[in-house]
Amino acid sequence: MANDKKLVEEITPMAEDFAQWYTDVVKKAKLTEYSGVKGCMILLPNGYAIWEQIQKNLDGMFKETGVENVYLPLFIPESLLQKEKDHVEGFAPEVAWVTHGGAEELEERMCVRPTSETLFCDLYSRIVQSHRDLPKLYNQWCSVVRWEKTTRPFLRSKEFLWQEGHTIHATAEEAEERTVMMLNIYAEFCEKYLAIPVIKGQKTEKEKFAGANATYTIESMMHDGKSLQSGTSHNFGDGFAKAFNIQYTGKDNTLQHVHQTSWGMSTRIIGAIIMVHGDDSGLVLPPRIAPVQARIVPIAAQKGGVLEKCSEVLSALKDVVRIDMDTSDKSPGWKFAEQEIQGIPLRIELGPKDIEKGKAVVVRRDTREKIVVEIDRLNEELPVILEKMQEDMLQRAVEHRDSHTYEARDYEEFKDILENKPGFVKAMWCGSRECEEKIKEDTTATSRCIPFIQEKISDTCVCCNKPAAKMVYWGKAY
Amino acid sequence: MANDKKLVEEITPMAEDFAQWYTDVVKKAKLTEYSGVKGCMILLPNGYAIWEQIQKNLDGMFKETGVENVYLPLFIPESLLQKEKDHVEGFAPEVAWVTHGGAEELEERMCVRPTSETLFCDLYSRIVQSHRDLPKLYNQWCSVVRWEKTTRPFLRSKEFLWQEGHTIHATAEEAEERTVMMLNIYAEFCEKYLAIPVIKGQKTEKEKFAGANATYTIESMMHDGKSLQSGTSHNFGDGFAKAFNIQYTGKDNTLQHVHQTSWGMSTRIIGAIIMVHGDDSGLVLPPRIAPVQARIVPIAAQKGGVLEKCSEVLSALKDVVRIDMDTSDKSPGWKFAEQEIQGIPLRIELGPKDIEKGKAVVVRRDTREKIVVEIDRLNEELPVILEKMQEDMLQRAVEHRDSHTYEARDYEEFKDILENKPGFVKAMWCGSRECEEKIKEDTTATSRCIPFIQEKISDTCVCCNKPAAKMVYWGKAY
Repeated sequence: MANDKKLVEEITPMAEDFAQWYTDVVKKAKLTEYSGVKGCMILLPNGYAIWEQIQKNLDGMFKETGVENVYLPLFIPESLLQKEKDHVEGFAPEVAWVTHGGAEELEERMCVRPTSETLFCDLYSRIVQSHRDLPKLYNQWCSVVRWEKTTRPFLRSKEFLWQEGHTIHATAEEAEERTVMMLNIYAEFCEKYLAIPVIKGQKTEKEKFAGANATYTIESMMHDGKSLQSGTSHNFGDGFAKAFNIQYTGKDNTLQHVHQTSWGMSTRIIGAIIMVHGDDSGLVLPPRIAPVQARIVPIAAQKGGVLEKCSEVLSALKDVVRIDMDTSDKSPGWKFAEQEIQGIPLRIELGPKDIEKGKAVVVRRDTREKIVVEIDRLNEELPVILEKMQEDMLQRAVEHRDSHTYEARDYEEFKDILENKPGFVKAMWCGSRECEEKIKEDTTATSRCIPFIQEKISDTCVCCNKPAAKMVYWGKAY
Repeated sequence: MANDKKLVEEITPMAEDFAQWYTDVVKKAKLTEYSGVKGCMILLPNGYAIWEQIQKNLDGMFKETGVENVYLPLFIPESLLQKEKDHVEGFAPEVAWVTHGGAEELEERMCVRPTSETLFCDLYSRIVQSHRDLPKLYNQWCSVVRWEKTTRPFLRSKEFLWQEGHTIHATAEEAEERTVMMLNIYAEFCEKYLAIPVIKGQKTEKEKFAGANATYTIESMMHDGKSLQSGTSHNFGDGFAKAFNIQYTGKDNTLQHVHQTSWGMSTRIIGAIIMVHGDDSGLVLPPRIAPVQARIVPIAAQKGGVLEKCSEVLSALKDVVRIDMDTSDKSPGWKFAEQEIQGIPLRIELGPKDIEKGKAVVVRRDTREKIVVEIDRLNEELPVILEKMQEDMLQRAVEHRDSHTYEARDYEEFKDILENKPGFVKAMWCGSRECEEKIKEDTTATSRCIPFIQEKISDTCVCCNKPAAKMVYWGKAY
């Protein structure tokens, strides 16, 4: 073994220190690297390849609903950012300001986009005249900047990658329909591709997006019981349209304001994949999103015929699954550990004895189950094993979430759960901001969402005992 | 016809005013829109979709050679930018500076990346130790900012999209091999996908990239005879490696500096597609890169059965070509004009009489040739027609370039050609910067490249009459 390589280092056990486990996994799976720019992360090939898979699949789902991709400028002139009052108040404290171009000071400073509502509004106000121009269903894949003080890979960084969809519609109904449609797409994407079950619901007034009438969210539960907001969809009504004067001539020849939505999912979701599925050996990637779904590890590769057979198997499977082969001069044990750390769903072990018997040992990353498969049947069996693994991962995530979701009828019970049992708490709420604030102060938990599927846990607000308006999911959050 | 729509407006004829023709085509094909941010353009769906096709195909070619995608920060701290002397001198005058994060002034100002050599060097210096870590073949797709004064859609803007590959290698030979390999990939991509023939060669010392040992370029000729630098590949030697201390332990256990390359292609290439293939009716997109390759236009769509048949044909062809259908309430003439302006390669006209005869009229955008095809054979014929069109477009571009490439043996002839005949001039050069500068002053033409395929036009420099060192392509450039 190479003498300039240390043995695969250990990852801090999850149960010992979840935050350190997360940092270790991100580092050892080679997903990101710290950069010389404080608070900005570098996405290494293993990390970026996951984002490429997310992009490809999510983008396909968007396009099926008529969404078109565009690209808008990185910069927002200060005067444009200020046009919508709530919006600028929400974002101005955390934007980066460009003041000079070359040696010259700019006449008007510009911020680096923290989100692009204002730019899309400015565009729409210029290209929309008639009801025939509606709807506009634009999306862009880009990076945005928010000047965060405390940062963690994927979860919070000064710059991150995301997609932001911005649509305008003739009617309030159409805008609402689109807002919910996109939330449903996020939910379907998380469950189908990422094996992450989500709770769909609405954010409270306190937690909604700056400038929105309503914010819908999908919330997922991490392995430590905390919640991660995994995608949001906003209905702006005609607030921005009025601020930016986006009007169209209706069929009845009167001038109308458009109704608007926006929705986004970011590289944060990679943090969710890690924290929902990972284990003490590292990352576990859901097969449908794994950039590499199977890795061939030759055993006793120096023996005649082994590498040739492995290469032959690799070629035969290339069109069936996303597959590679580890031909480095490391030991098989080292290669196994690396494949596990990186979360590659399947390992295919192929040595002289296996080849003699015409069989391969396939090892599932999630369960470590060893499955002996005839080499000639790998092309049929691998997709089946991957699908089964995908289903099992979703099932386990659902079970984990459900077994960590509690109900509270009074404030003592509520506080006790939040103190002692990591997870979600379902509890009734009167609808007041005061109760939300008191709960946050007492427990550090926040309202995650008012779920679309309502249940009646009790008659009164868990905090103030006044009549309850809604059932809410509460939890500590990333 | 809709009364709130004006007739399709005319495009300024190319022969009358090429620059205005270009602006008109970009606007009327709905590729870009001016933004509220001076000098930054908006890529509209028609424009961005072309970039998506470019990305998809070029990215595939990169990956086949082992390139991996990453994402590095948008910002470069001033101290990092300054580490390589030539590089900072080249870029500092045209960068945008971020000075504030939120309300706070930054301790060190940062520029928005104009290119990312410095960030990649900083990364490589931290992740490379051994010869086993080499080569690193990283690329990123992102936007960059250069504070240009005069801007034009695609050709020059303050922000543009591109890919930048940055590789490091153990030896100078490997780095040189990669530099040339990537230039060849750009050339192949341009010819195969964009139907744009290119001249491959090396930039002179005067024209090379800030900090590079050697810059290779592909130059293509626009319809007005001007040259457009369409992709560049740089060999940095170990200059950056020394400035950034990127070292590895070789097989002989000694410390060595890496050898480095970078290479990029940008949305500028969309400008080339427009100016090589466009005509007085608008854009003409090469079939292999066209986001929509064929559009069905129903004729007499109100007649029973027409729309149904068109939809049926659309469904049957969806897996064969990239196809859509214009079902708006505009007239067929208007739809034809729009399809032509947008450069969609094929139009499929389907009316009641066609349907009765079981035939469709297929119209090629480039030649306007009408081809009658049995509806049942469209799935076989369309790919053939598209391939033929692709070949013909390349052929015509080659002929245009060759018929506008001249040879000059003395300075009078040289100046005469550059004044009167738009195109390239092949002429000998002594190798001195003085002659390059004199030629630029006298003619506004620059050295486009020292082509890999050298010819001997004469014995002496076309400018100073001293002994010639190289044959150079000269021309006016975008």
